[in-house]
Amino acid sequence: MIKTVFWKNNAVVLIDQNALPLVERQVVCSDYRGVIAAIRDLTVRGAPAIGVAAAMGAALGALALSQEPGEKFKKKFNALCDEIAAARPTARNLFWALERMKKHLNEVIRSGKRNPARELVREAKRICAEDIEINREMGRRGAALFSDGDHVLTHCNAGALATAGYGTALGVLRAAAAEGRKLHVYVDETRPVLQGARLTAWEMKKEKIPATLICDNMAGALMRQGKINKVIVGADRIAANGDAANKIGTYPLAVLARVHRIPFYIAAPVSTFDFSIKTGEDIPIEERQADEVTMFRGVVIAPKGVKVYNPAFDVTPARLITAMITERGVLTPPFPAAIARLQKGEK
Amino acid sequence: MIKTVFWKNNAVVLIDQNALPLVERQVVCSDYRGVIAAIRDLTVRGAPAIGVAAAMGAALGALALSQEPGEKFKKKFNALCDEIAAARPTARNLFWALERMKKHLNEVIRSGKRNPARELVREAKRICAEDIEINREMGRRGAALFSDGDHVLTHCNAGALATAGYGTALGVLRAAAAEGRKLHVYVDETRPVLQGARLTAWEMKKEKIPATLICDNMAGALMRQGKINKVIVGADRIAANGDAANKIGTYPLAVLARVHRIPFYIAAPVSTFDFSIKTGEDIPIEERQADEVTMFRGVVIAPKGVKVYNPAFDVTPARLITAMITERGVLTPPFPAAIARLQKGEK
Repeated sequence: MIKTVFWKNNAVVLIDQNALPLVERQVVCSDYRGVIAAIRDLTVRGAPAIGVAAAMGAALGALALSQEPGEKFKKKFNALCDEIAAARPTARNLFWALERMKKHLNEVIRSGKRNPARELVREAKRICAEDIEINREMGRRGAALFSDGDHVLTHCNAGALATAGYGTALGVLRAAAAEGRKLHVYVDETRPVLQGARLTAWEMKKEKIPATLICDNMAGALMRQGKINKVIVGADRIAANGDAANKIGTYPLAVLARVHRIPFYIAAPVSTFDFSIKTGEDIPIEERQADEVTMFRGVVIAPKGVKVYNPAFDVTPARLITAMITERGVLTPPFPAAIARLQKGEK
Repeated sequence: MIKTVFWKNNAVVLIDQNALPLVERQVVCSDYRGVIAAIRDLTVRGAPAIGVAAAMGAALGALALSQEPGEKFKKKFNALCDEIAAARPTARNLFWALERMKKHLNEVIRSGKRNPARELVREAKRICAEDIEINREMGRRGAALFSDGDHVLTHCNAGALATAGYGTALGVLRAAAAEGRKLHVYVDETRPVLQGARLTAWEMKKEKIPATLICDNMAGALMRQGKINKVIVGADRIAANGDAANKIGTYPLAVLARVHRIPFYIAAPVSTFDFSIKTGEDIPIEERQADEVTMFRGVVIAPKGVKVYNPAFDVTPARLITAMITERGVLTPPFPAAIARLQKGEK
């Protein structure tokens, strides 16, 4: 099993996702600032994985504060959580995980437990273990949507590498395959960072699920030819009305799926839902540096000085989404009501 | 001015489009087989440029046959034309140019001229000169469709580098800019071969037309944000009903343009129209090798052995096209009637 993020000997161990698929190696962070750098430079990416890494980063920070007295510990811990939260702006899970860590510290203080840092390490490990369990539950609930012989398109990597392990969208496909259904997966390469070509193709190979790599701009032609009959992707943040931010290039796939009458599914844990945001309009979209587009591993692919626009995410309006697979059930339209029920369950 | 293909000292000179934008260099072919190789490996690409290169390649072949007696000359010339025609399957202009060369040889033989090879060289040079003139005429006719302040998306390279010079879609934008209109061009990078990032971005820089490079999968988000208000692309083959084959990724842009109520224009010379083909269903779509997708300039970007599907073109149905700019006027729907009139004019 792929273990994307885990805690070992008071350090956070990450699969180095920038090195994949050529090199399989790990990055070990023994300081929360190392975790921030790893989130920023995409060593660890994928909304749930970022959440787990952030919680573990906060736990690392807590360990370094062990000698601080109570109030000072809390103040410094909250400050370093805010520092981690600033690493990337779009994925909800990052903020969700850090809020949970802060809340846990409050509970620890209230209960008068002696060693808050140790309790925070435990909480981070719990978030990690729960993430895998949540993914498996999404897999169990979502697998029924997929049938023998399906040709499924996915975009970016919503797999084991985007979570603590197992995956959201790919977790559902893993579960369907484990239940004996024969699937064929079309993998969008996902420019500019190529999470599809590098990470999803690698996971499908490991899992022995038949897969074909395509460029992002080929999906339309394949749909028109009837070669794709389902689409499933993950999400980075879902608003209260069901609008979903996900990797750039998701929105055009949702439009094409609708035009070709192909179901378009999102698989995401409850921690990806931002109940405080009414619509996708309010989701902050990260813009990343130009050289992600103009270079690849040191190879220049565009004229020097060319202007680049590089948004890392787009927003798919709720009306283009067929269903959302969560660990608490499969949501169907109307999404505002379904998401309101989800929120009630969280309280 | 960019001269993509030209005749010099009994050789065909090509800008090496695989080397751009990093290196500006020329490839000199003194044998028709060299031209075939250059068409195959994309040293020269773009439907009109392929047509001109093919005609010049045929002329090179004719020169080597100078000593052959009449009937043998014709037989061997026609055979080498067929060999050149097999270089790539989709672009109509390749076959159009070679048919014109064959037809010209018949006329030369009929008129009893002494040196058919010399006449064929002249015809190839004429095809080249006419191509530039045709592009300028398309520019004059199409420029009126573009207004000051337009934000125009283009895909692949339908510029000077896709023709003998000046360009089809980019020719129209050049003409509009030359008439004083301020345009801003969004350049799709155009995976897998990156003709947008490498060639269109280079041309826009040379021409000093403001341009922004994006990945293909970003166009949808930009349209949704209102950042693009027109789309213009070239074409490789247009069927009698107006269905148009163009670089892979064109069809999804046409769908997105329709959904966002953005005009979608095609600029193509009459030589791109295939009056013998009823609909786009009958256009042969080239599939190219996997390593175009899995590698870039020797850098591997996908796991070893991954299966790849790499169609080089897709077909945009006529109903998604707002207008087609040709050197004989701007065609508007219903396209079957407009194209029938175009065909009549050709006879």
